[in-house]
Amino acid sequence: MDSIKNRRTIRQYTDEVVSSELLNELLETSFRTPTMGNMQLYSVIVTRDAGMKRQMAPLHFNQPMVEQASVVLTFCADFNRFTRWCDINHANPGYDNFLSFINAVSDTLLVTQTFCNLAEDCGLGTCYLGTTVYNSEGLIDLLKLPRLVMPIAAITVGYPAEMPEQSDRLPHQSLIHAETYNDYTNETIQAIYHYKESLPENKHFVLVNEVDNLAQVFTQKRYRKEDNEQLSQSFIRALKQQGFFGR
Amino acid sequence: MDSIKNRRTIRQYTDEVVSSELLNELLETSFRTPTMGNMQLYSVIVTRDAGMKRQMAPLHFNQPMVEQASVVLTFCADFNRFTRWCDINHANPGYDNFLSFINAVSDTLLVTQTFCNLAEDCGLGTCYLGTTVYNSEGLIDLLKLPRLVMPIAAITVGYPAEMPEQSDRLPHQSLIHAETYNDYTNETIQAIYHYKESLPENKHFVLVNEVDNLAQVFTQKRYRKEDNEQLSQSFIRALKQQGFFGR
Repeated sequence: MDSIKNRRTIRQYTDEVVSSELLNELLETSFRTPTMGNMQLYSVIVTRDAGMKRQMAPLHFNQPMVEQASVVLTFCADFNRFTRWCDINHANPGYDNFLSFINAVSDTLLVTQTFCNLAEDCGLGTCYLGTTVYNSEGLIDLLKLPRLVMPIAAITVGYPAEMPEQSDRLPHQSLIHAETYNDYTNETIQAIYHYKESLPENKHFVLVNEVDNLAQVFTQKRYRKEDNEQLSQSFIRALKQQGFFGR
Repeated sequence: MDSIKNRRTIRQYTDEVVSSELLNELLETSFRTPTMGNMQLYSVIVTRDAGMKRQMAPLHFNQPMVEQASVVLTFCADFNRFTRWCDINHANPGYDNFLSFINAVSDTLLVTQTFCNLAEDCGLGTCYLGTTVYNSEGLIDLLKLPRLVMPIAAITVGYPAEMPEQSDRLPHQSLIHAETYNDYTNETIQAIYHYKESLPENKHFVLVNEVDNLAQVFTQKRYRKEDNEQLSQSFIRALKQQGFFGR
């Protein structure tokens, strides 16, 4: 529990290599995570090769961790393996649809997080690359993902070379609802976000971005409506290409 | 690491209540899980009330854990809270789209799994209810989820009253790919699934279901094409209703 309480995202790593033995042990243990019908609808692509990292970097907006980390892991939703097994056994697989995609996404993200919990407990540092779902088509090409396999989460893994401040969190009570969803009033929303808005680094972001407040940093600079709508289209296109969304 | 190595899904619980203090501490700690841009795009609905559990049970195909467990937690993808904050701040939120849904799903599932790892490390037992995405519309009604909130994962939590065998796993090497996806041959598929097929309980399933092999148990009895396609439609309908999939 302590390693989770104290965790930070680590973006800078030492040169020390994460050994294959340790990586495989952590992955094997993380595969104890439960999955839908014990189908294990995921695959993990391990990127160690410098040339592969160089090609991968622009797909992750050239975040420096991609080339600097010992390992990049791309966790993929995978109904290819299971479907192949069905085909061989003259069973009629019905997993080229949206519900099956969501099931595989669920398996994939749960196992990813167990991996992170384990890796951090062993002293490794990790960083999620939120860009994974922005450039699905590029990652599918680079990692040679067949039909019914989609990249869902990618993390960089290495030995920490930094100890950043812990990031803030919203008051935990505000995220927990008893029995039914206790919808927010304007006043509760303001109270929930007050601490985040008051942080010096966030005040700085407002200043340098020349906006009125922190929410506008998100909507105008970081996660913009027009980008989200365009990225939704490319994600759905990739889903269709991989066979998860009808024909 | 040991609690993950030894984990089992627990479906039978003692009468002991999971205290609010423990539950809140575990949830608060699980909220250290990293999220997209630290937006924390999730909410957790805590079900303790017997009447609520009774209404919830049929939505989870009357799996007995729902009424028997001390607590049911429904982890929801939530862009309502963040969007409300944007609205109050005259920022233009653009999160009523598919990419934003996937981002919120990711935040939600990662935090769910950290919660499970923590809870199990404290001696609690958990069981994922895969039915959560089958009956989104019913859960949205029952839990009074507003627009931009979708139920994604539900778990039952309680003190274990059973110690089942650990479930099998596919050979871990077969789920790990070096640099690019190493697609399977018919021979590797057969080797990967051989152990699963050889288990007495799985041979029993084949026998009682009067099918030729284990793959057909999945495709004809457990996760059928026609069901998946119908459930895909109802899931997409719920996504549209909650505002995550265009208008």
